[in-house]
Amino acid sequence: MHAYAETERTRVRRLPDRARHDVATVHAILDAGLVCTVSFVDDGRPIAIPTAYARVGDALVLHGSSKSRTLLAAAAGAELCLTVTHLDGLVLARSAFHHSVNYRSVVIFGRADAVTDPERKMQLLRAFTERLYPGRWVEAREPNEQELKATLVVSLPITEAVAKVRTGGPIDDVEDMERPVWAGVVPLRLAAGTPVVDTGVPSDSAIPALAWPPG
Amino acid sequence: MHAYAETERTRVRRLPDRARHDVATVHAILDAGLVCTVSFVDDGRPIAIPTAYARVGDALVLHGSSKSRTLLAAAAGAELCLTVTHLDGLVLARSAFHHSVNYRSVVIFGRADAVTDPERKMQLLRAFTERLYPGRWVEAREPNEQELKATLVVSLPITEAVAKVRTGGPIDDVEDMERPVWAGVVPLRLAAGTPVVDTGVPSDSAIPALAWPPG
Repeated sequence: MHAYAETERTRVRRLPDRARHDVATVHAILDAGLVCTVSFVDDGRPIAIPTAYARVGDALVLHGSSKSRTLLAAAAGAELCLTVTHLDGLVLARSAFHHSVNYRSVVIFGRADAVTDPERKMQLLRAFTERLYPGRWVEAREPNEQELKATLVVSLPITEAVAKVRTGGPIDDVEDMERPVWAGVVPLRLAAGTPVVDTGVPSDSAIPALAWPPG
Repeated sequence: MHAYAETERTRVRRLPDRARHDVATVHAILDAGLVCTVSFVDDGRPIAIPTAYARVGDALVLHGSSKSRTLLAAAAGAELCLTVTHLDGLVLARSAFHHSVNYRSVVIFGRADAVTDPERKMQLLRAFTERLYPGRWVEAREPNEQELKATLVVSLPITEAVAKVRTGGPIDDVEDMERPVWAGVVPLRLAAGTPVVDTGVPSDSAIPALAWPPG
């Protein structure tokens, strides 16, 4: 199994049985998400900002305004910590103490590079769009030169990463098992609702196929 | 309107029209969530870990194992940045550049204190449970002395905070408006599925009322 080497930062100390270091699990959790939290250090203090991402091969790609403080810090080579979390369920136990949540999370450490080559930038922006809406790139207008200049794209190699996963029901103490109280899991998932069409869209325009959210 | 004073860290430079500094908005976004990302600085580098939270009055409360590295750092007075994000919709525009997402996020800066008084600790843990499952605290077994000792509770005063919100449809360039392509919003929300009962639960046990997720 192809796996990330454990480092001091990716060794899970608490509940290490929930840790996953294999690449397949890390990639699957990343691909199931859309927004991560990007943390960096500014003047000795932490700043953590949510932003959209896409995994492209072995890299996590971020993009945004070329004036974004977070992206500028990333492009300048700041140490980053990227966090992705999916909340999968509420776990109700027979004791307050054993209540929990089911989740899948990934934490990635590293430094990003700014992507400056216009062709590569365009490829990555295309990947960003196409992983959500296959076929959308040719349907919508492509970025023009000015838009491309206004967009900062950074790429973080995924080399130091760890996933943490909790699944399943409550784990109660034996002496609580007879307590006459409901216990179990309430599953949670991000669900898409009915699309709201913008004004002026021709009535024969089909809603694009959505490849996301999964499930 | 009761609002947080803007600081160097909570001044939103990019798209400042999306910033919200009023307390009501910040509280509402916090109450709509369950998991935040806690960022702190370790040896000059950022670490950001997802963890459950509850807002109790003007404070954000975290809890977990008394051996948790993140909570120990928080209890020791580390500078923290807490981030909460709700993804509310996919925004499809007529140009790739104007694709976006609807979201509500809150970023809080500050230092937490460990809650050591056992009675106060119990109150906060109760608030944690009751905001999700009203009535659950008396239904489930309360924490015993040993469990209370094994639980670290920290409280972060919400004094330096900012929300950022995007709502509504795509904002396209005028020259793209005639493009014959679907544009609009696909709403997203965290939805609860059918509860999965644990083995051994008496069949007449009612599923607790869920006060969360909202909507």
